[in-house]
Amino acid sequence: METGETTPVTNARGQLVIIGGAEDKEGDCTILREFVRRAGGTQARIVVMTVATGLPDEVGRTYTEVFERLGVDDVRIIDTASREDGSDPRALEAIEKATGVFFTGGDQARITSNLKGTEVDAAIHRRYAEGIVVGGTSAGAAMMPDIMIIEGDSETNPRVNVVEMGPGMGFLPGVVIDQHFLQRGRMGRLISALAQQPAVLGFGIDENTAIAISDNKFEVIGEGAVTIVDESGITHSNVGEILKDEALAVCGARLHVLPHGYKFDLQTRKPILD
Amino acid sequence: METGETTPVTNARGQLVIIGGAEDKEGDCTILREFVRRAGGTQARIVVMTVATGLPDEVGRTYTEVFERLGVDDVRIIDTASREDGSDPRALEAIEKATGVFFTGGDQARITSNLKGTEVDAAIHRRYAEGIVVGGTSAGAAMMPDIMIIEGDSETNPRVNVVEMGPGMGFLPGVVIDQHFLQRGRMGRLISALAQQPAVLGFGIDENTAIAISDNKFEVIGEGAVTIVDESGITHSNVGEILKDEALAVCGARLHVLPHGYKFDLQTRKPILD
Repeated sequence: METGETTPVTNARGQLVIIGGAEDKEGDCTILREFVRRAGGTQARIVVMTVATGLPDEVGRTYTEVFERLGVDDVRIIDTASREDGSDPRALEAIEKATGVFFTGGDQARITSNLKGTEVDAAIHRRYAEGIVVGGTSAGAAMMPDIMIIEGDSETNPRVNVVEMGPGMGFLPGVVIDQHFLQRGRMGRLISALAQQPAVLGFGIDENTAIAISDNKFEVIGEGAVTIVDESGITHSNVGEILKDEALAVCGARLHVLPHGYKFDLQTRKPILD
Repeated sequence: METGETTPVTNARGQLVIIGGAEDKEGDCTILREFVRRAGGTQARIVVMTVATGLPDEVGRTYTEVFERLGVDDVRIIDTASREDGSDPRALEAIEKATGVFFTGGDQARITSNLKGTEVDAAIHRRYAEGIVVGGTSAGAAMMPDIMIIEGDSETNPRVNVVEMGPGMGFLPGVVIDQHFLQRGRMGRLISALAQQPAVLGFGIDENTAIAISDNKFEVIGEGAVTIVDESGITHSNVGEILKDEALAVCGARLHVLPHGYKFDLQTRKPILD
């Protein structure tokens, strides 16, 4: 998965459900319902990964309750609170049997520092390549690319120093994912994240909104929209000329805003319009 | 000026300085300094229009102090608190002699309701056509187009009902201007404002940032950036198919982010790159 390429195309047979945070857990649960449906419906076996959060019991219980309410009998919580937990045989066995693995929100740096390169990480990637569904919300969404946003400032114009980038978990290479997107005014932060790697696609996912990816295409699900910034065809950027705290310029980027039901082709980098 | 055309090109000989709000008034005053310079420097005769604000004395005094500190001896405050004030002979005389007219922040609906169509409005437009500088910050920026944002929600994905549009003062037709732009997360609001009129250009101006327009070109001044959304070449929009509270889709818009020193050609709709 971690090819380092700047195309968001993978050969994995699995699916990804990448959620911009704050997904509905009490009403229709449109997004979590779709995750469960793709993971096998009432026959799904779901592992909830609480590695990102400092409140694993509480957050794990919340998702267990939702998935059980939707009819899933087999829900297990795995909390890799340290790297040692990343080779826990019980965790490896649960992932081996899982049809869906779900990463909760929290801090994406906890996901990479505790999990990246462990046996559990390898097992999830292998199972994903074989066909299971990997989902994640908020921090669990941010970690999906090979290079991820670790943290950054919201509500600012683009500057190199407003965002800290680092290795992600590599489920979807060639993109950058930001979440709570328009709700927290993160356009400047997403453009900053793309500054050093204009060939990757930027996806800004709103709260209670998700992209469900299979066969190198995604479909938008939920209440808000997904904002796509494509800098691959830009006519100018000043990133090579400025210092870290100076304002970025970008000319000629492509912008798409896609709400529920819209589809996007990762290979052609274009919305799929009927 | 109020041609209703969807091209931001005018024949006016004057200049516009359009500020995204919260411009520096205590430090270098980069933007207000540029306004004064363009209005004639220490020889400038400036009229401060406080029509937008409910605190005309306080706000008028603040700008008078800044302009005087920058060396302007002739600063007059005009407060058209009612439409009757829009034919005040003293105001008309001051505008006749002015080299610069500056609109403060406040509520842009107060500018149009109190001033639009009055003799003072006509005088400012005539003087602008003859060559003076018209500046405005925040509400004084929003009012510049022929169709303006009256009010709207920040930090939301685009929907038709998140923004209320209405007639503006028509100094710069063919554009929509939003202010406090990235600081308040207004990307969704700007795209909503463009939904019904994709041929116009959207300018999102950050705080302490301005565009200075002359000869159908602008230059960016200040700390942040100007975000330009150009929907004239979009491949798809769902605005004709959705209801007011449903999420907008826009595919294939053009996006530019221009910081201090960058220039943009309103006729070609492109950044001017050396």
